[in-house]
Amino acid sequence: MIKALGYAAKHSFSNLKPMHFEREDAASNEVEIEVLFCGNCHSDIHQAKDEWSNTVYPCMPGHEIVGRVRRVGSQVTRHQQGDLVGVGCMIDSCGSCGPCKTGEQNYCEGPNSWLATYNGPMVPAAQAPDGESMYGRDNTYGGYSDVIVVREDFVLKIPSALAPEVAAPILCAGVTTFSPLKHFGVKAGSEVGVIGLGGLGDMAVKLALALGATVTVFTTTEEKLAEAATLGASAVLESDKAALKKLKGSFDFMLSTVPEKHQLDPFIALLKRDSTLAVVGAIGPLPGYNNQELIMHRKSLAGSVIGSIAETQEVLDFCADHGVAPDIRLIPIQEVNRAYKAVEDGEARFRYVIDMASLKELEAS
Amino acid sequence: MIKALGYAAKHSFSNLKPMHFEREDAASNEVEIEVLFCGNCHSDIHQAKDEWSNTVYPCMPGHEIVGRVRRVGSQVTRHQQGDLVGVGCMIDSCGSCGPCKTGEQNYCEGPNSWLATYNGPMVPAAQAPDGESMYGRDNTYGGYSDVIVVREDFVLKIPSALAPEVAAPILCAGVTTFSPLKHFGVKAGSEVGVIGLGGLGDMAVKLALALGATVTVFTTTEEKLAEAATLGASAVLESDKAALKKLKGSFDFMLSTVPEKHQLDPFIALLKRDSTLAVVGAIGPLPGYNNQELIMHRKSLAGSVIGSIAETQEVLDFCADHGVAPDIRLIPIQEVNRAYKAVEDGEARFRYVIDMASLKELEAS
Repeated sequence: MIKALGYAAKHSFSNLKPMHFEREDAASNEVEIEVLFCGNCHSDIHQAKDEWSNTVYPCMPGHEIVGRVRRVGSQVTRHQQGDLVGVGCMIDSCGSCGPCKTGEQNYCEGPNSWLATYNGPMVPAAQAPDGESMYGRDNTYGGYSDVIVVREDFVLKIPSALAPEVAAPILCAGVTTFSPLKHFGVKAGSEVGVIGLGGLGDMAVKLALALGATVTVFTTTEEKLAEAATLGASAVLESDKAALKKLKGSFDFMLSTVPEKHQLDPFIALLKRDSTLAVVGAIGPLPGYNNQELIMHRKSLAGSVIGSIAETQEVLDFCADHGVAPDIRLIPIQEVNRAYKAVEDGEARFRYVIDMASLKELEAS
Repeated sequence: MIKALGYAAKHSFSNLKPMHFEREDAASNEVEIEVLFCGNCHSDIHQAKDEWSNTVYPCMPGHEIVGRVRRVGSQVTRHQQGDLVGVGCMIDSCGSCGPCKTGEQNYCEGPNSWLATYNGPMVPAAQAPDGESMYGRDNTYGGYSDVIVVREDFVLKIPSALAPEVAAPILCAGVTTFSPLKHFGVKAGSEVGVIGLGGLGDMAVKLALALGATVTVFTTTEEKLAEAATLGASAVLESDKAALKKLKGSFDFMLSTVPEKHQLDPFIALLKRDSTLAVVGAIGPLPGYNNQELIMHRKSLAGSVIGSIAETQEVLDFCADHGVAPDIRLIPIQEVNRAYKAVEDGEARFRYVIDMASLKELEAS
């Protein structure tokens, strides 16, 4: 067993606090990684606070992990000691369902779906068809910790052109926006609308621009208009009805990164015929919408979850090649609860990334 | 001018009653058609009763028209006197927008959109960008009449293999279901779910089966289970939670033909990954849905409106070739108000078709 230290929440109402625990030693196909940086995703907050009503406590979030390989299992061929690597939202999947066979582990249809990096299994044993956890565990602990052990196939290579702390948010925010942008056909010349300019929105804008699209940001926060402009996007306040009216029928694709329930109709109106609004931020109930717009112009509403392992590697490499870098603020782990508050208040356009060196200071003290 | 007789509603609360009126003589590119049969679409009822809050009175419904060419304009080349022809939901479109140029008149983006066979223009002048009706009229009268005059490009050929009264519902119910079945990739071996078994549902089931799909019908009416079986489809009561649970993740495509607001979540759950639920029946507000299912399996909600003129001809020919015939009940026009009541009560799986000979009796009396 490996002695480990992380930050976890014990209840939905408690702050994250230091927690000593143990990780199992790397199996023959696994890699032991010293965690260097871990991004702070809005999902971490939803999960820690049980806002999806499925949190198993203690809850140790973190699925935007960059670290260095410390040890490899005897059969590992993809990674070596000393490699700079990444771990995203998944650390395993069933491997035998349709999507897994075609390399789309993020849509795993196995009995427990893919194994989430924290708060996994995705489908708890009690809800699985065979009533068992195929992964042999009840709860996984994420990257808010000093070490993690992951199957080599689910470990990504961090390109040398990317600073490790900057690479972290690409592992979730990056691939979560890149995958639908690609899947729904965004390419050079596309008109793309991005709703919400937080951690996901920042990546969506940069990736869409790098793909050659023209991008318009929709935000409820006046200060973010200027932020969008610095990224090279147009920006519109959602309350500006006249501006919205002018954009009716303008977009080839729209991506909602807003992590909460919000109205869809104002954005459906902005789609071109045969185009899609994909909502990736809000996981849960959405309000009703007027089907007339979908009918009269054959528009669609869709969802999309993170991306496959191959897509995650692709977006890392794409960012390295195109100079795309998430906007981050490095924080010590001791500030994570304060960062959560800022994200919840919608203040953060950038991504908070935890510098895990701060955990060592804690250990030493 | 042509003296004409039809059935129209004068107010949202009044029955349809005989109305004498005049049609303009056929222009050089138009065809004068003696109406023989006209299907009764649920839209006729919505429109006559102003349930979409956009009805112009008097309202003379009818857009499933089969008739015989009585006279042709001097430039008409596509049709001849004596031809058996059909007219569907559209009788004109702008002709110059993107969709019109690619022959998708049903998605016309001109200032008044396509010209509806009745209650057109689709977009009234007051709402059009230039504030004018490009069609030079404020209200069109549909096929509940003895004669209609239509631009030749919007007149369909009725294949000789189809009985004229049976062909009528293909012009709306047929193409409205055929177009999305084809667009969303239904083919031999597809698993298709059809929600609602009225006039549209009947056509959806028959067309999907003729395309080689396996079909399951979802209905709230117990008597329709047996009806579905006679068509060659499985059928499930929507209240049968156990049966629905078993079908989770089963369908390549689902089509909702229910002409009213209804819950989407129970059906979204039944879609396979990357599959679409197209709602074609309910034109208006739909209730909220849980985005988690769309996200976790990249599912979509969509809409679709009728079909192009080419698709309308295609579905007529397809029905002739594959022996697909809507289930109809022929009624005299004097019974149209009673038929409306039966359709509203959800009693009709079949399509009422008005035998316009009954109008002549009225004229003679």
